[in-house]
Amino acid sequence: MAYKRIGIIGGVGPSATVLYYQRIIIGYRERRGDEYFPEMVIHSLDMGEINEYFEKEEFGSLSDKLVQAVEGLQKAGCEFALLACNAMHMVFDRVQERISLPMVNLIEAVLGEVKRRKFKRVGLMGTTFVMRHGLYRQPLELSGIQCLLPDKEEQAWIMKAILEDLQNPHIPQETIARLLKNVERLGEQGAEAVILACTDLPVAMSEELSPLPLLDSTKIHVEAILDFALGNAK
Amino acid sequence: MAYKRIGIIGGVGPSATVLYYQRIIIGYRERRGDEYFPEMVIHSLDMGEINEYFEKEEFGSLSDKLVQAVEGLQKAGCEFALLACNAMHMVFDRVQERISLPMVNLIEAVLGEVKRRKFKRVGLMGTTFVMRHGLYRQPLELSGIQCLLPDKEEQAWIMKAILEDLQNPHIPQETIARLLKNVERLGEQGAEAVILACTDLPVAMSEELSPLPLLDSTKIHVEAILDFALGNAK
Repeated sequence: MAYKRIGIIGGVGPSATVLYYQRIIIGYRERRGDEYFPEMVIHSLDMGEINEYFEKEEFGSLSDKLVQAVEGLQKAGCEFALLACNAMHMVFDRVQERISLPMVNLIEAVLGEVKRRKFKRVGLMGTTFVMRHGLYRQPLELSGIQCLLPDKEEQAWIMKAILEDLQNPHIPQETIARLLKNVERLGEQGAEAVILACTDLPVAMSEELSPLPLLDSTKIHVEAILDFALGNAK
Repeated sequence: MAYKRIGIIGGVGPSATVLYYQRIIIGYRERRGDEYFPEMVIHSLDMGEINEYFEKEEFGSLSDKLVQAVEGLQKAGCEFALLACNAMHMVFDRVQERISLPMVNLIEAVLGEVKRRKFKRVGLMGTTFVMRHGLYRQPLELSGIQCLLPDKEEQAWIMKAILEDLQNPHIPQETIARLLKNVERLGEQGAEAVILACTDLPVAMSEELSPLPLLDSTKIHVEAILDFALGNAK
């Protein structure tokens, strides 16, 4: 069965890259049901360098770096690419317009899922950068969907939890409870579902324990990637 | 600090690829001690396709595939490459002679370690293919080092353990005990150390529990890769 060779821009961070890699393989094998594995090429960037671009707001340099990396994936035979990171999507359009290789956009995939499930008001949880930036809010609002955030204090706490507690194999019960409390509060404000716009959040929050449906951005992105790779793009 | 961009030929299997990826990042960061991460490109092959080449003994097609993948890594800016798999090293020389990119050889790295530690007789544990093939035995014997194997029955059992028990997060105690018993028997036959020529074996066998020093092929390979990347090649 033919499929398009996948190119991944990863390394930001490495554990998200591993998650994408494993989920793409599992999803591909589930869909195909034979002994084959998807061939793919991963360009793992230097997270230290990328963080500097974000801190200094050097988005031109960040775009240059991504264009160069995607062009390398193209030369290595990839037929499309993806950015395995929420925050890097802020330069998605600038990168896409400079390259000929198609890219599967994470934000668009999540927006598509929100629309398909006909949610009119959704909550958003992720890193501070992703919550405060218009990355999700703008395209959601353009589609007439309201985007709700936890309050400033909770945003700062969520960021701290992502950087600390969620990096440990044993996540404290009180951290899980407070994350779910944030989901509950977003629900009280009218959210019908909450977007988990960070690879680490779904590790701590299962939908069974949650008062609202949770939209795992990585999971939704991987389904869109497999749809594109296998020619079932929605 | 300058370093050579690493190219990994992976996917055979995916968990070995993840192990190389994580260990290279950890090792690089330990050696540098700053906020940077190594930039690298991973070409993950289709394990189903590669297994077919092995089963049908189509080593020409396997070499063609690897040459193409390494050339792709070169085009993506890699300055050297490695095969993240023991068995694929049987075509290492044929691949290397067709490409200009240098490759860091796993078998040579292990041989170097055996010589540095002045072992004259070593045991070898790995998949059936790796144990029965001259992959390690030939270069060891050319250096005057004897290579001992578990008996045929135990070779078959080790292969089964690698495919079954060692893939589970909880490895049965009796599997660990029998693996260590094999190390002990190789010691009784005169082995001074045992090469663990499979990424899965070190998960089950720690050196503290072992009657002999264990040479973890992945660990030794990663050190050689970092030496090469950072310009400290031995």
